[in-house]
Amino acid sequence: MRVPFEEMKAEFKRVFIKYGMGEAKAETCAAIHAESSRDGIYSHGANRVPRFIGYVKDNWVDVNAEPALEKSFGAVSVYNGNMGPGILNSLYCTDRAIELAKKHGIGMIGLRNTTHWMRGGSYGLYAARKGYVAISWTNTESCMPPWGGAECKIGNNPFVMACPGDDGEPVMIDMAMSQYAYGKLQVVRQAGKKLPFPGGFDKDGNITDDPGAIEESMRILPMGYWKGSSFAFMLDILGSVLTDGIGAADIDNVGKGSCGGASQVFIVIDPSRLSDAQHISTAVKKAKAHIKSAKLAEGNNAIWYPGEDYVLYKKENTEQGVFIDDGVWEEIKSL
Amino acid sequence: MRVPFEEMKAEFKRVFIKYGMGEAKAETCAAIHAESSRDGIYSHGANRVPRFIGYVKDNWVDVNAEPALEKSFGAVSVYNGNMGPGILNSLYCTDRAIELAKKHGIGMIGLRNTTHWMRGGSYGLYAARKGYVAISWTNTESCMPPWGGAECKIGNNPFVMACPGDDGEPVMIDMAMSQYAYGKLQVVRQAGKKLPFPGGFDKDGNITDDPGAIEESMRILPMGYWKGSSFAFMLDILGSVLTDGIGAADIDNVGKGSCGGASQVFIVIDPSRLSDAQHISTAVKKAKAHIKSAKLAEGNNAIWYPGEDYVLYKKENTEQGVFIDDGVWEEIKSL
Repeated sequence: MRVPFEEMKAEFKRVFIKYGMGEAKAETCAAIHAESSRDGIYSHGANRVPRFIGYVKDNWVDVNAEPALEKSFGAVSVYNGNMGPGILNSLYCTDRAIELAKKHGIGMIGLRNTTHWMRGGSYGLYAARKGYVAISWTNTESCMPPWGGAECKIGNNPFVMACPGDDGEPVMIDMAMSQYAYGKLQVVRQAGKKLPFPGGFDKDGNITDDPGAIEESMRILPMGYWKGSSFAFMLDILGSVLTDGIGAADIDNVGKGSCGGASQVFIVIDPSRLSDAQHISTAVKKAKAHIKSAKLAEGNNAIWYPGEDYVLYKKENTEQGVFIDDGVWEEIKSL
Repeated sequence: MRVPFEEMKAEFKRVFIKYGMGEAKAETCAAIHAESSRDGIYSHGANRVPRFIGYVKDNWVDVNAEPALEKSFGAVSVYNGNMGPGILNSLYCTDRAIELAKKHGIGMIGLRNTTHWMRGGSYGLYAARKGYVAISWTNTESCMPPWGGAECKIGNNPFVMACPGDDGEPVMIDMAMSQYAYGKLQVVRQAGKKLPFPGGFDKDGNITDDPGAIEESMRILPMGYWKGSSFAFMLDILGSVLTDGIGAADIDNVGKGSCGGASQVFIVIDPSRLSDAQHISTAVKKAKAHIKSAKLAEGNNAIWYPGEDYVLYKKENTEQGVFIDDGVWEEIKSL
């Protein structure tokens, strides 16, 4: 079904307040979840609201915790997230990184002991809409086999890069390290289809495009095989090194759900200290036009720049109401 | 054949001096090329020396140019590389970023108008051996089709992340955005073999593991399909935005060889301001042990951490002499 954006946000807010969150914090969390759904990231928008409430009920997330400054030097700081809501901790740290970038041209915040940040791109978009370049990532519990291994020992660590766009909408990547999300495997399996490209190994180690076989083996494929595996490893290590926090090996032992106890890095840069607004806008515009000028591959009807899909979803979901699965909407309304 | 490291370095130095480079600069460039070969990165070590000299002969690289400061604010600066040797420009900017990180905890240098940096990992290792975390990348000319396209309109932009290790050797990724390098396609084709996984599309748009078909079509596959394509696009844009420089669309028009006129970003962070040495060392050690504890996949005999291969090559090439193709060594000696 489709629900008007404001109605969806209000419903999320009602639920967050019911489970102990203050009014202003509930407004912020509700907006991030609703915006994620509006931008087409249903998996981390509406669909995560019930799971988040489950975490609150289990005392895995402390809705009233505040991030606390632990270390500070020049343009870098470390905050302890105190297992507060991931969205609030991540937004807070993005704001602190923006303040540092205003003052020093660049700033970095290491956030440790936090919880799931939901859609990582939310913080990239937030900074880019204010005119900043953002680079950020989180580590996670072990949920993907390292290359050459058959057991989950690395995180599927999302990595975000965002830049102000030439037309008011940022360009951004927000990508996890697996070729496909588990959510995607489920959707494709339920539709009785195969993945467009191999997405993992079956339990006997055969590479496969059968989503059910991968869900069974849990041997999901890193994007680019060994490349995504190595990238995920570096994000995990730098997560713990730059935040005084922990990586996958220790997150596995926290036992407070997905990303409970995770470490996140927020790097923000003020491009206006490095180049002028005209050059930046032209550079983005030219790069978009350049890729779109390529001859289309057989069977393709468009080349998209990173972030263009969010803009298209945003338009459709704003005009027609934000799409939400009927069951999810009922579940949230019953909370 | 195998050549002792010092002999190889001395030979490279002789060549660089012969083609107009000062003694100290020639020593530095020779060391980087020889170390790349020693670490097993033959493609960007010895094998690139003749091509570099070709660029010097064509006046595409100015061996006597010096990088010049153009913008500076707090912890960020922009340098004009003045089309000097890529190795010298990149090392210089890494040093400047280290200085900024010493002072502010983090520093960023944008380098524009530079030339091919050879092995990008050289600068990551350089910073990490001094105790710093480094994140850097370069953009390039268009040499890979964007996802959905059949013509080369994005760069194969290498991305580097390096961190001090627990045993004196850094952990590092140094990865270009294509699944395979063109050099790899050539080697596999000459051996009469197929790629282990599909590496591109043939001229009719069929995904293929036949290296010759990909060389012919030039439709090399981004790592992780759409993910590597989008990542490459962001590195291109941020390359130009953060350096006041240019991206692939304009590099294509410079006409001074691979990466002639490219833009590079060097972010350096001092982890000692964020965490203590013991925590950092333990975090890296634990993460390495964690992935190596995974059950091995069928047919695999080891799980490697990123950078482990360099350490193994370094040992072998130091003990037995650095491997070099006979023809390449003769070509360099004849220069």
